[in-house]
Amino acid sequence: MADTTTPKHNNSNPKNLPKVLLLKPPPPIYHRFESQFSHHFNFLKSFESQLSLPEFLAAENSSDDVTAIFVTSLGPRITAADILDHLPSLRCIVTSTIGVDFIDLDECRRRRISVANAADVFSTDCADSAVGLLIDVLRKISAADRYVHRGNWSVSGAFPLGNRLGCRKIGIVGLGSIGSRIAKRLAGFNCRILYTSRKKKPSVPYSFYPDIHELAADSDVLVICCPLTDETRHMINREVLLALGKEGVVINISRGSVVDEKELVKFLLEGQIAGAGLDVFENEPIVPEELLALDNVVLSPHLAACTDDAYHDLYEHVKGNLQAFFSNKPLRSPIV
Amino acid sequence: MADTTTPKHNNSNPKNLPKVLLLKPPPPIYHRFESQFSHHFNFLKSFESQLSLPEFLAAENSSDDVTAIFVTSLGPRITAADILDHLPSLRCIVTSTIGVDFIDLDECRRRRISVANAADVFSTDCADSAVGLLIDVLRKISAADRYVHRGNWSVSGAFPLGNRLGCRKIGIVGLGSIGSRIAKRLAGFNCRILYTSRKKKPSVPYSFYPDIHELAADSDVLVICCPLTDETRHMINREVLLALGKEGVVINISRGSVVDEKELVKFLLEGQIAGAGLDVFENEPIVPEELLALDNVVLSPHLAACTDDAYHDLYEHVKGNLQAFFSNKPLRSPIV
Repeated sequence: MADTTTPKHNNSNPKNLPKVLLLKPPPPIYHRFESQFSHHFNFLKSFESQLSLPEFLAAENSSDDVTAIFVTSLGPRITAADILDHLPSLRCIVTSTIGVDFIDLDECRRRRISVANAADVFSTDCADSAVGLLIDVLRKISAADRYVHRGNWSVSGAFPLGNRLGCRKIGIVGLGSIGSRIAKRLAGFNCRILYTSRKKKPSVPYSFYPDIHELAADSDVLVICCPLTDETRHMINREVLLALGKEGVVINISRGSVVDEKELVKFLLEGQIAGAGLDVFENEPIVPEELLALDNVVLSPHLAACTDDAYHDLYEHVKGNLQAFFSNKPLRSPIV
Repeated sequence: MADTTTPKHNNSNPKNLPKVLLLKPPPPIYHRFESQFSHHFNFLKSFESQLSLPEFLAAENSSDDVTAIFVTSLGPRITAADILDHLPSLRCIVTSTIGVDFIDLDECRRRRISVANAADVFSTDCADSAVGLLIDVLRKISAADRYVHRGNWSVSGAFPLGNRLGCRKIGIVGLGSIGSRIAKRLAGFNCRILYTSRKKKPSVPYSFYPDIHELAADSDVLVICCPLTDETRHMINREVLLALGKEGVVINISRGSVVDEKELVKFLLEGQIAGAGLDVFENEPIVPEELLALDNVVLSPHLAACTDDAYHDLYEHVKGNLQAFFSNKPLRSPIV
């Protein structure tokens, strides 16, 4: 999909385009769409400089007039001391991510800085990934692929059987934009859908559980797709895993820290749960080494959200948010 | 799930139970349910004997009174010369498989021998596998799992992006019991469904293509789930793969020989198609060695149909077919 909007300032001096500070280029969207972005914004690339942020801004004559920044969770944390104190005119933060746990939202509210995230740009691909990881774990697709790749099929014979997806009870943790898409997909496999969420959703046919322990006790699988917040950090702990039980499976496409990773590893090693499909980890890109030896764990390098198509959509979405800000229009996906 | 039917002959002499010849025990259902089967049938286990089939039948005093056999595609081919000529009283063949390409059906018709297959016992799990393989290939799940397992994530950084499933055009080759379940599942992912089949199905909303080349030309993915017959052998040949094109993906959960495997390997090696998810091969358990090096091919050891749940269902289904035959009732799933 090409960028179909006509660049308004194509032949102008880029210095006349709206300034957007870039602390670290959000991968891979920035490099992929750098040329398209450059028709619309004058990116101040502090990441290319050896200077500290205040020195860089001073050198660019921009200490007082940066009103927008484009950020990613892989860059610095957006806190008062590290970033906000150096940007007195900042009014808008646009992030390339869904999760905003690396941004001090309370501080942004206090300073009346708007924050816009990637909204549901990634929801479709996240939901597809969650279902893919779930089928993979239950039906042992990656493990069987390893078995064939190693030449074991012709030597050792049949591979152990997996478990049917249909008729399983799937507990969805967080029935938002992603969770509801996962539910829709799994309904097509005749799964029974249960969920927990901050509030009961009046319009869905699935069983609501206000308590995560009760959800885990009634579910064969927990699919974690809630945001990481102070309330959800380590929500999937020892007690929840015990409630899920020996036949239980955990799929996590949210954030690593929603799960107490040490406990999860212990439960997997001891066979106290049956398997896991993990796209996220507590200390990425470090994956607990014990997991590498387990055939019942599918490991994905934080890719659930990521496809070529999603990045096209994201480029349009980020551009739309920044253009809205600079035109004094409502942001596409305001969080704060 | 326990066998809940009350064995009628539990305390009788097994010699009084209906005789069923077993040329080779269908794995893994026979060994798994041997004890339950033995309450209902007197299995003549020719596979345990060193004798030829005629010698074995003579030794068992059963040369003339075997009316039923229970078979599998992994045993001998069921032809006149090899099997049928030695069983003059044979009236019923029950197979543990969906595919019946190893049985000479014309000869069975001539001899008025009924044949019953596994019907749709495996359809749910086959459809789930096809979708799992498709998500895996498009989203590179097994390849990414290998990448993490080898420790590459922390050393080499992000893994290449996959492609979105939704909005792809999926050409289903064979819209029967399995194909229609695949279509139902993929509709939940917002895929567009096209199909070819012996006949246009009047009651489905998908686009019908009488010609496989036209289907391939209009599809992003071909999902092969038709039976292997003289007409479908090597149906997916060089011309069809050319029509599918460089961005195309092949998923095969049918039989290896529906695809011209040599051509498929060539197209994959030369990047003339984008990837494949293969549960079946022409010379199982031999997998073409060239495929083992490719990251865009997911290899599955003929497991698409197989789950614990499916084998429970299959036991009940086989028992039901044999009991129907011995009670002069209609078979559950007659093919001939």
